[in-house]
Amino acid sequence: MALSPLFVGLDVGGTSMKGGVVDDQGRPLGSVSMPTEAYKGQQHGLARMAETIRAAVRAAGLAMDQIAAIGVATPGTMDIPAGIILDPPNLKPWRNVPVRQYIYDTFQVPTAFQNDANAAAYGEYWAGAGRGAHSMVLFTLGTGVGGGIVIGDTVIEGEHSHGAELGHVKIEMTQPRQCGCGRMGCLEAYASATSVVKRTLEALAANPTSSTLSQVLDRGEDITARAVFMAASQGDRLAGQIVEDTAYYLAIGAMNMMHTIDPSVIVFTGGMIGAGEAFLERIRFHVKQMAFPVPAARTQIRYSQLGTDAGFIGAAACGRQAYRKQTVKDG
Amino acid sequence: MALSPLFVGLDVGGTSMKGGVVDDQGRPLGSVSMPTEAYKGQQHGLARMAETIRAAVRAAGLAMDQIAAIGVATPGTMDIPAGIILDPPNLKPWRNVPVRQYIYDTFQVPTAFQNDANAAAYGEYWAGAGRGAHSMVLFTLGTGVGGGIVIGDTVIEGEHSHGAELGHVKIEMTQPRQCGCGRMGCLEAYASATSVVKRTLEALAANPTSSTLSQVLDRGEDITARAVFMAASQGDRLAGQIVEDTAYYLAIGAMNMMHTIDPSVIVFTGGMIGAGEAFLERIRFHVKQMAFPVPAARTQIRYSQLGTDAGFIGAAACGRQAYRKQTVKDG
Repeated sequence: MALSPLFVGLDVGGTSMKGGVVDDQGRPLGSVSMPTEAYKGQQHGLARMAETIRAAVRAAGLAMDQIAAIGVATPGTMDIPAGIILDPPNLKPWRNVPVRQYIYDTFQVPTAFQNDANAAAYGEYWAGAGRGAHSMVLFTLGTGVGGGIVIGDTVIEGEHSHGAELGHVKIEMTQPRQCGCGRMGCLEAYASATSVVKRTLEALAANPTSSTLSQVLDRGEDITARAVFMAASQGDRLAGQIVEDTAYYLAIGAMNMMHTIDPSVIVFTGGMIGAGEAFLERIRFHVKQMAFPVPAARTQIRYSQLGTDAGFIGAAACGRQAYRKQTVKDG
Repeated sequence: MALSPLFVGLDVGGTSMKGGVVDDQGRPLGSVSMPTEAYKGQQHGLARMAETIRAAVRAAGLAMDQIAAIGVATPGTMDIPAGIILDPPNLKPWRNVPVRQYIYDTFQVPTAFQNDANAAAYGEYWAGAGRGAHSMVLFTLGTGVGGGIVIGDTVIEGEHSHGAELGHVKIEMTQPRQCGCGRMGCLEAYASATSVVKRTLEALAANPTSSTLSQVLDRGEDITARAVFMAASQGDRLAGQIVEDTAYYLAIGAMNMMHTIDPSVIVFTGGMIGAGEAFLERIRFHVKQMAFPVPAARTQIRYSQLGTDAGFIGAAACGRQAYRKQTVKDG
C-alpha cells in the first residue's frame, strides 16, 4: 500500500453511476462513469457497481490492492447502518439490496454506505466548499431538493436514515404547493428545478404575452429551468420574477437551517448554480433580510466547489472514515 | 470528594433562577429558587447566581468542596463558547456579562455555560424523557417557543450560538403571522402560549357569541392559554379548534425536525403540556398524517419528564461534561 492511503468512492444515480479514486486529501486521481441500467435488476446493478469501481481504479493507473477502502453512495429509501437500499423510487425495480455487504465481499476492504446527498455534503465538507469549516449544510437542487448536514466531521444520518431530507421541510400552510413526494408545502415544491418550470408555466398561462419564453412553447418545445434562468439574465421580466422567487424560497431553506443547525457554511449545488454569482447574491440578500442578525452576518453561503464529483469524493470520504475506524480498532 | 461526583446546575430566568445539586445519574438532591431581579443590574445578578449556587448546596445538605463542577444556563443572546451573555431581552439591562468566568473565579471548579433551552434539552436527554435515546429534539412552549437538539451526547449549540432556535423556523409565507421576534411566519407566532391567546381573541372578535370564553372577557379578565385548553376540554368548540390548530402547528415543528435531524425522540415541555395526553395524541396524529412513513412510525413523541427542573439538571449535566473533559485532560 502507498504511504498515503487511497480510496474509491462510487456515486450511484438513477441514470448513471460515477466512480473515482481519491487520495488522503480528497484529490481525485481518476474517475469513470457507467450507465446504471437499474431496469436490468439489482444483481446486474451490484455487478455494475463492482465493475465501475474496478474501472475507476484502472482509470487512476492503480491496482485494486492499492485501495485502502471503498464508499458507496446511493439514492434512498435506505437503511444506512445496515448498508441496504430498501425501495428506491429512482432505482426501480430494486428492493432490499445489500450494497455494503456485496461490495465488501467482492473487494475485502473496509466499505462504507451512505445516502447520496449526505455523501455529497461530506465531500464538499472534506475537500470542497466546506473545507476547513466545523459544520456545513448542503442543498442539492435538481428534479428534487436534497440535503446533507455535517457537524464536526459527523454526517447527520438521522436515527431512521431520514436526516437532512431538507426538501421536505414544510414552509407553507395556507396555499401549499403539492410536492413530488405527495406532501403539501415542502421546500422542494417551491425551490426545485421542476418547480421553477412549473411556476413559469403557471405564470405564462396567466399572462401568455408577457415573456419571451412563450415563443419556446409556441415552437412546441419544453421549457427548462435553464431556459428560465437564461431568459431572466437577458432581462425577461416574467422569468426574472420566477428566479427572484426561487432565491427567496432557497433563502427560507437556508434560514431555517441557520436557526436549527447554525452551521459555519451553507452550500448550494446542482444545475441551478449555473445561474452564477448574481443568483447567489439574491439568496444572500433574502437571508440577510430574514435571519437573526448574527448568523445572517457570519454564515458563509456558497456554491459547490466539487460539482458532480462531490458524490464520489464524499463516498470515498465515508470509505476513508470506515478505514480509519478499522485502523484504530486494529492498531 | 464523594466517590460519585456531584454537580450544581443553575437555570437563570427573567423572573427567577433555580439552582440544584444532582448526582452522577442526574438525580436532584436538593434545589432552591431565588428572584433574579435583573433590574438591579448585572453585578447584582452575578452575585445572586453565586448566592443561589451556595443555597442549593446547603439545601442538599452538602458543602461547596463536595461539588465537582457547576453549569449555568441563561437565556440569550449569548456567546456560548466565550461563556458570555450578550444583550438578553429577558435580563435587561444586562450586557456582555462574563457568567462562566465569574462563577469559575468564585468557586474554582470546572464551570460550563449554556443556553437555557439547550440545557433543558440536555437535562431531558440525560435524565428525563430522552434517557437512553441516541438523539433528541426538545420544544419549549411558553411565551415563546424555544428548542434544543442533542445528538450522541453533543448539544447542537451552532457555530454562532444560534443552534436550535426552533421557534424561528419559518412555516408560512402567504399569510404569515408576525412573531415576537419581529420576523414573519415563525413557528413561535403559531404555537406559543402567546399565540394561543392571540388566536383565541381573534376568533372571539370574529364570532363573540360562539364561546364560553367570551364571558371571561365580559368580566374584564384576560384570557390565558390555560383557560383556552380548559374550555376546550369542557367541550367549547371555538377553544377546541384553537387547541387542534395548535397541535397541528406543533406537529409541523416536529415533522420539520424529523426531516432534518431525524431524532430518536421529540419532547415537548412548558405550561402547555398541562393539557395532557389528549393534546399529545393530536400532535402525534398530525405528525403521522404529514411526515415520511418511517420516522412517522418510529420517532417517539413525548412530554417532558423533568418539567421545570430540566433547566438546572441540564445545566448540571453541562457542568458534568466540563468535569469529565477536565478529568480526561488531568488523568
